[in-house]
Amino acid sequence: MLKSGYSAESYQNGVVHVRIYDIIQKKRDNFSLDDDEIYYAVNGFTNGEIPDYQMSALLMAIYLNGMDSRELTVLTTAMTISGDSLDLSELGNLTADKHSTGGVGDKTTLIVAPVVASLGGKVAKMSGRGLGHTGGTIDKLEAIPGFKTTLSREDFIGQVKKTGIAVIGQSGQIAPADKKIYALRDVTATVDSIPLIASSIMSKKLASGSKNIVLDVKAGSGAFVKSLDEAKKLAGTMVEIGKASSRNIAAVLTNMDIPLGRAVGNALEVTEAARVLSGRGSTDLETVCRELSARLLCLCHGWTFEESSRHVETAIKSGAALEKFREWITAQGGDAAFIDDNTALGEAAVQYEYKSSKSGYITHMNAELIGKAATVLGAGREKSGDAIDPLAGIILERKTGDFCKNGETIAVLHTSNKERLENARHYMEQAIVIGPVKPADMPLIYAVIE
Amino acid sequence: MLKSGYSAESYQNGVVHVRIYDIIQKKRDNFSLDDDEIYYAVNGFTNGEIPDYQMSALLMAIYLNGMDSRELTVLTTAMTISGDSLDLSELGNLTADKHSTGGVGDKTTLIVAPVVASLGGKVAKMSGRGLGHTGGTIDKLEAIPGFKTTLSREDFIGQVKKTGIAVIGQSGQIAPADKKIYALRDVTATVDSIPLIASSIMSKKLASGSKNIVLDVKAGSGAFVKSLDEAKKLAGTMVEIGKASSRNIAAVLTNMDIPLGRAVGNALEVTEAARVLSGRGSTDLETVCRELSARLLCLCHGWTFEESSRHVETAIKSGAALEKFREWITAQGGDAAFIDDNTALGEAAVQYEYKSSKSGYITHMNAELIGKAATVLGAGREKSGDAIDPLAGIILERKTGDFCKNGETIAVLHTSNKERLENARHYMEQAIVIGPVKPADMPLIYAVIE
Repeated sequence: MLKSGYSAESYQNGVVHVRIYDIIQKKRDNFSLDDDEIYYAVNGFTNGEIPDYQMSALLMAIYLNGMDSRELTVLTTAMTISGDSLDLSELGNLTADKHSTGGVGDKTTLIVAPVVASLGGKVAKMSGRGLGHTGGTIDKLEAIPGFKTTLSREDFIGQVKKTGIAVIGQSGQIAPADKKIYALRDVTATVDSIPLIASSIMSKKLASGSKNIVLDVKAGSGAFVKSLDEAKKLAGTMVEIGKASSRNIAAVLTNMDIPLGRAVGNALEVTEAARVLSGRGSTDLETVCRELSARLLCLCHGWTFEESSRHVETAIKSGAALEKFREWITAQGGDAAFIDDNTALGEAAVQYEYKSSKSGYITHMNAELIGKAATVLGAGREKSGDAIDPLAGIILERKTGDFCKNGETIAVLHTSNKERLENARHYMEQAIVIGPVKPADMPLIYAVIE
Repeated sequence: MLKSGYSAESYQNGVVHVRIYDIIQKKRDNFSLDDDEIYYAVNGFTNGEIPDYQMSALLMAIYLNGMDSRELTVLTTAMTISGDSLDLSELGNLTADKHSTGGVGDKTTLIVAPVVASLGGKVAKMSGRGLGHTGGTIDKLEAIPGFKTTLSREDFIGQVKKTGIAVIGQSGQIAPADKKIYALRDVTATVDSIPLIASSIMSKKLASGSKNIVLDVKAGSGAFVKSLDEAKKLAGTMVEIGKASSRNIAAVLTNMDIPLGRAVGNALEVTEAARVLSGRGSTDLETVCRELSARLLCLCHGWTFEESSRHVETAIKSGAALEKFREWITAQGGDAAFIDDNTALGEAAVQYEYKSSKSGYITHMNAELIGKAATVLGAGREKSGDAIDPLAGIILERKTGDFCKNGETIAVLHTSNKERLENARHYMEQAIVIGPVKPADMPLIYAVIE
């Protein structure tokens, strides 16, 4: 079916067979691709019929000329059905999923999941590992002794039925087309394209089977998408794709200019999540988690946002969410002792106080650079497959807007290896700007798209 | 015979840090590439360091975002020096080359070369073979018994010194970067890009070493570039590249909406060339050849166009050009008998009169389709390496604007194989439109760019 080269007449006379050359040419000339052309490109590339060099030319043409809504829906569907899909139908209509576009100190899943489950949502979730300066939920959960991130399908569904939550690592062949396309985009400068990002994320979400989906789309220095306008476009595109596939979906645009919460690093973040669920956590983190939980519950139950917000507040205040957290961790084999004892997950051998070298207000705290500091301390991976140190990370004593005197501690760096401190301090110095004037407060939640 | 050009190491020694990913990204974002980035992309791809899939992404970005004059000059130079270059310096400053962007029935080299050589030009030329619906000069010359299209460097230069002309097939490694890039463009829908076409053609011309170059840029149904505007842009771009490399260069924009002359096919065209040189040929063909010859002589001698045109007329009328033709063919081992005897090259076994099925004016004669008819008769190649039949082809008894009665012969189809007629007739039927009104004359020469 795939002929190399191109003959003008076959194109002009109206093609019978779909040919990749013609598909590239059509997108190059800024026309919309037909459904069968998109399916052919995705499937042909995934099964090896279409070579890398043709797919990369097509991806660059898509990068530069974009895709309309119908094309995007079809592209996403083609990637979704390229592999396995999770059938959650036996869990009913309250299945709930959450996706974050990735940030520094983002432990919202650990909080949102038990809040939503304590209010009837069925969180049957697959999560990823971290790469680069952002952490992954699975890495965080693995900081809990005994916690199992792999479950059989039966145990996974059974646990959700019983407790309302199960969170596991990606298993099986979820959207293999996306995996292969992403690897090619990664080396051909076609990653940061809104249609390509949106279809990549949504193909995995759709294959994961939940009916109700809330997206946390982050904008700012620590986010994948730095500008708010771009983040809005991305959010709108993903919501549109989700709706076209009959999902209840909303996107919350949140600030990722500074790290979320005070802890960055796996065990440190798990402990912080427990504090938020017990009503003693960082304000910014709690605010974002309440928003995400309430939006997801609106989708599940058809509640108004005010109703949802009230239920969320009660769930936290009453301790119901915290109990759900404990139930979940225990059900999945984890030792829940850290919920009552902040030190139960262990402590890093080296704890270094990073101090201010002058007096003033913290006017900026670059989240990406804080994430990189945490990574060099051992909390993250620079490349896929790197081992991580669950105890490594950073506790931010001060954040943007706070005043600190010369010599006061801004952050505590946790690591097992003293030699890593210098590199981390270098990033911290770049990340933090101190000035004489208190900066204006930045909004934490920019907008909701539904 | 060839001087070795560029070596990868010599380039890499000068480069501190160029990465193909960054180059793709830069062109994707519509910035100009630096000189060293272009050299790196061309050389890295040619030597296999840069994989196909990254080069095709870059080519698509260049296709969609273009290149400025400096980038194009550097791209062309990088491709030129990727292989061998012909050193023609011992032939002096009158070395003259001609390039046509390819047409149907285009035998101008066979006429221009002897005209120019009879007036002092030194035509040391490498030509190509035909592919698709357009013929190649080397195939035409091989229709002459005994004609050698391969010569040693010594014989090649010696023959030019003695007779003023030698035309051989491409030998050695002329612009291997262009060859490899073209093969990739051919399967990734990045062929018809003006910067990429211009740099491809000019890299080969520059490596071929002549000081004076005339380009015959064709526009119309039988040309590679169908629209006059596009052809003008292509011509202007190539002239600019040539000047940046210190060549005397001009481009003539000519009409390739209908075949040039009356013969299409190798032996038929050689015979027609001899007729034009003896002052008995088709008017349109002679007009184009006079123009190209005169423009090339202006570049060589610094003559005005009027002076050049007068000299060209004299060369044809006096028989000097015809004698030069005979001298050239003989010097290169060919039997020149066909110059005096139209039938000396042989005749096709099957000659079929293609007749008009109604009375009227020929309002259109699609050159590409006539070229395809000739190809299926055996005169051309559908794919590289196909054998061709030197005697096959078409003689056009009527051309656009001519009146023909129902049943009168429009063309004679020549082939060795009767079974090929049906397919050829099918193309002829599509190619020729007959209507009641005489069409307006079309200009033969649209413009000259210098």
